[in-house]
Amino acid sequence: MLTAEGCRARRQRFLDRLKPSHPVVLADPLHLRYFANFYVDAISSSADFGGLLVIRPDGHATLYHDAKLPGGVAKAHADAVEKLPWYTGQEPELAPRRLVLRPALEANGGRIHDSIADPIGPQVITLISELRRAKDPDEVELLKTCMKASDAGHAWGLANIKPGMTELAAYAGVAAAAYASLGQFTTVYGDFTVSPGSKKRGGPPTPHVLEAGELFILDYSVIAQGYRSDFTNTICVGCKPTADQQRLMDLSLAAIAAGAKELKAGVTCQHVYDAIRAVFAAAGMAEFFTTHGGHGLGISHPEPPFIVRHSTETLIAGDVVTLEPGLYVDGIGGLRIEHNYLVTEQGAEQLSNHRIALS
Amino acid sequence: MLTAEGCRARRQRFLDRLKPSHPVVLADPLHLRYFANFYVDAISSSADFGGLLVIRPDGHATLYHDAKLPGGVAKAHADAVEKLPWYTGQEPELAPRRLVLRPALEANGGRIHDSIADPIGPQVITLISELRRAKDPDEVELLKTCMKASDAGHAWGLANIKPGMTELAAYAGVAAAAYASLGQFTTVYGDFTVSPGSKKRGGPPTPHVLEAGELFILDYSVIAQGYRSDFTNTICVGCKPTADQQRLMDLSLAAIAAGAKELKAGVTCQHVYDAIRAVFAAAGMAEFFTTHGGHGLGISHPEPPFIVRHSTETLIAGDVVTLEPGLYVDGIGGLRIEHNYLVTEQGAEQLSNHRIALS
Repeated sequence: MLTAEGCRARRQRFLDRLKPSHPVVLADPLHLRYFANFYVDAISSSADFGGLLVIRPDGHATLYHDAKLPGGVAKAHADAVEKLPWYTGQEPELAPRRLVLRPALEANGGRIHDSIADPIGPQVITLISELRRAKDPDEVELLKTCMKASDAGHAWGLANIKPGMTELAAYAGVAAAAYASLGQFTTVYGDFTVSPGSKKRGGPPTPHVLEAGELFILDYSVIAQGYRSDFTNTICVGCKPTADQQRLMDLSLAAIAAGAKELKAGVTCQHVYDAIRAVFAAAGMAEFFTTHGGHGLGISHPEPPFIVRHSTETLIAGDVVTLEPGLYVDGIGGLRIEHNYLVTEQGAEQLSNHRIALS
Repeated sequence: MLTAEGCRARRQRFLDRLKPSHPVVLADPLHLRYFANFYVDAISSSADFGGLLVIRPDGHATLYHDAKLPGGVAKAHADAVEKLPWYTGQEPELAPRRLVLRPALEANGGRIHDSIADPIGPQVITLISELRRAKDPDEVELLKTCMKASDAGHAWGLANIKPGMTELAAYAGVAAAAYASLGQFTTVYGDFTVSPGSKKRGGPPTPHVLEAGELFILDYSVIAQGYRSDFTNTICVGCKPTADQQRLMDLSLAAIAAGAKELKAGVTCQHVYDAIRAVFAAAGMAEFFTTHGGHGLGISHPEPPFIVRHSTETLIAGDVVTLEPGLYVDGIGGLRIEHNYLVTEQGAEQLSNHRIALS
C-alpha cells in the first residue's frame, strides 16, 4: 500500500520541479494513483469515472471525487477529501455523473493541467513520467504485493492447466488463485494463450481448448491500487516437453540469467538487451527472439526504460524492470519467460518468485 | 455489435441538436463507444488509454488512437481511422503514451469539447446523456448479447455455488461461464456477496467462505463493447431455504411482476416504483425494501431513468431499464432479484432470461 508520507513526498518532488505559482489540477487516473493512492477499480461500475487532485504551491492537496465510487478510494491520501454526492438511490439523478466534478474544477481555476488539451499538459505529463521512473519504498512494497499474488496464480497454472481446458477457463483459475492470495478482488490481465510460434506470441484468453503438447504462455499482471506485476511462465500442456521445447526453455533460462546479471544502476539498457540476445545468438537462435527484452513497470504497461534492440536509456536505482526473453519457432511453439527486478546501486533484487518450468 | 449505420445515425442526431460550426472533438470513452463502437477493454494493459473522435459539421468522423490498443478497437466505426504509432518493441518510446494523441488534437483545434474543462463540455455531455436514453436497434442487439452471457453465468451459479466455496471462487466460476457464453474474454463485475440483511446489500466478492443457509446475492454485469447487462438472483447456499427466506423470494417475485406489468412508454417511473412497493406494503414488509426499484442501463451504470422512491422521470420507447426489488431482513438475510427490459410503446420486452430461484 502506498503511504501518506510517500504520496506527500512525490507531490513535493513534483512541486519542486514544476514550481507553479497557482494550484495544479490533476485528473489523469495514473497521476491520482501516484500522488494520492487514489484508484478506481477497473472492474466496477465506476471504471469510467475518477477524481480531481488539486495541489497548491504550499504542498496542500485536496482530492475531489463522487461519493458513488467503490470503497477502495477510501485508501486515498490527501490533506482534504471532498466526497461529492451523486445518486443516493432515493431521488433521480438528473445531472450526468461526469459533471459532478465540474463545480470543484471551476472553484480551482477551471483548467485540468494534465490534460492533453491544456497548454501545460505536455510539460506536466512529461515531468510526472520522468518522476515515476525511480520507485519509492512504498511503491516497491505495493509492487511486491502484486508479485506475490502473481506467484500464486502461476503456481495454480502449473498444477492445474490440463488438456481439455479452454484458455478462458485457465484464465479464470489463475485469476481466482491471484484473488485468493491478495485476499481481495482485483484486475488480472495479460497473455493467456497458446503460441504456435511466430504467428501468435500473446493475446487474451480465447475459447480454444488446450491440447497436449501445446505451449501455453501465461504472461500476466495483477493490479493493486493501479500498480502491477508482469511476469511469465510457459507451460507445455499435459505433456513431457519435447527435446526441442525443452531447448527453447533452457536457452531462455540462460538468457534471462545473463540479462539479470547485468542489471545495475548506471548500466545501459542496450548492454542488458545485448547480454540476453548473446545467449540466443551463441546457439544460432537469435532470429527467433523477436520480442523486446524487457521494460519498466509501475502504474502503466509498458513504461520506461525500454530494454530493446535499439535502446538509448540507462538504468537508475529504483527502476522496476521486467526481463522477458522468448523464442517463437514454428513447428515447435512459442515460449517466453519473465521475472521482475528492482534495480539498485549494487545490482538488482528479483521481485518475482514463481517457478519457471514447462511442466 | 453496434453497426456502422447505427453509429452514423447517432452522430447525425448529435449534430442536428448541437449544430456546431466547426469540428467537434470527443475523448470521453463513453462517447466513443456510443458514436463509434470504440471500446478499450477495461481488463487490458490499455485500460487507461483511449482515442479521439473528430466529428465534422458535414457528418464526417475521424477516429485517432494509438496502435498499441487491443485488437477489439478494430471493430470501431468511423469514416477514417488514424492509428498512431507508439512503442514498436524495437526502439525505446521516449514520449509518454498519453501524448500520442496531442498532435491530432492540435490539428483539430486543440480543444476536447466533451471535457469538463471545456467551455461547452457541460452542454455536450448533457446533450449526449439525453440522446443515450432511447436505445437504437443495434444497441439493443448488443445489450441482448451481454444478457445472454449473464444468463449463462447465473445458470452456473445456481448449479455450482456450494458451502465451502469462497465468494471470490464463486465470482471466478460465474465469470468463466459468461466468458464461455460470449466466446471471448470480457469484464464481469457487480455484487457477489452474502447479505445478512440490512448491514450489507452488495459489494465485490471477498475471501468469505460460503456457509449453508446464507443468502448469496449475484447482481452483476457482463460488458461487451462497453455496453452491459445488469441482473440478479439470490441463492440460498447449499440448503433448502427456510420458510422466511422463501417468503422474501415470493414477495420479490410478486413485486417484480407488478412493476414489469406497468412498464410502457409514457408511464411515470414513480408509477412503476409504487407498483413494486405496493406489493411489499400489502405484506407489511415495505420498510425492508431499502434499495432503489430500478434504473436505466446502457454504457454506464446506473443511467437515467431512475425508478426510485421520489421519481420524476417518464419512460420513453427505447429505454432499457432494470427492475430490482429486494428485502433485507436481519436474522433472515438480504435478497434481491432483477430483470432487464426494453420499454416499448406497447409495454416492455424482458431481455434477461435467467432462472430466479433460491436453489
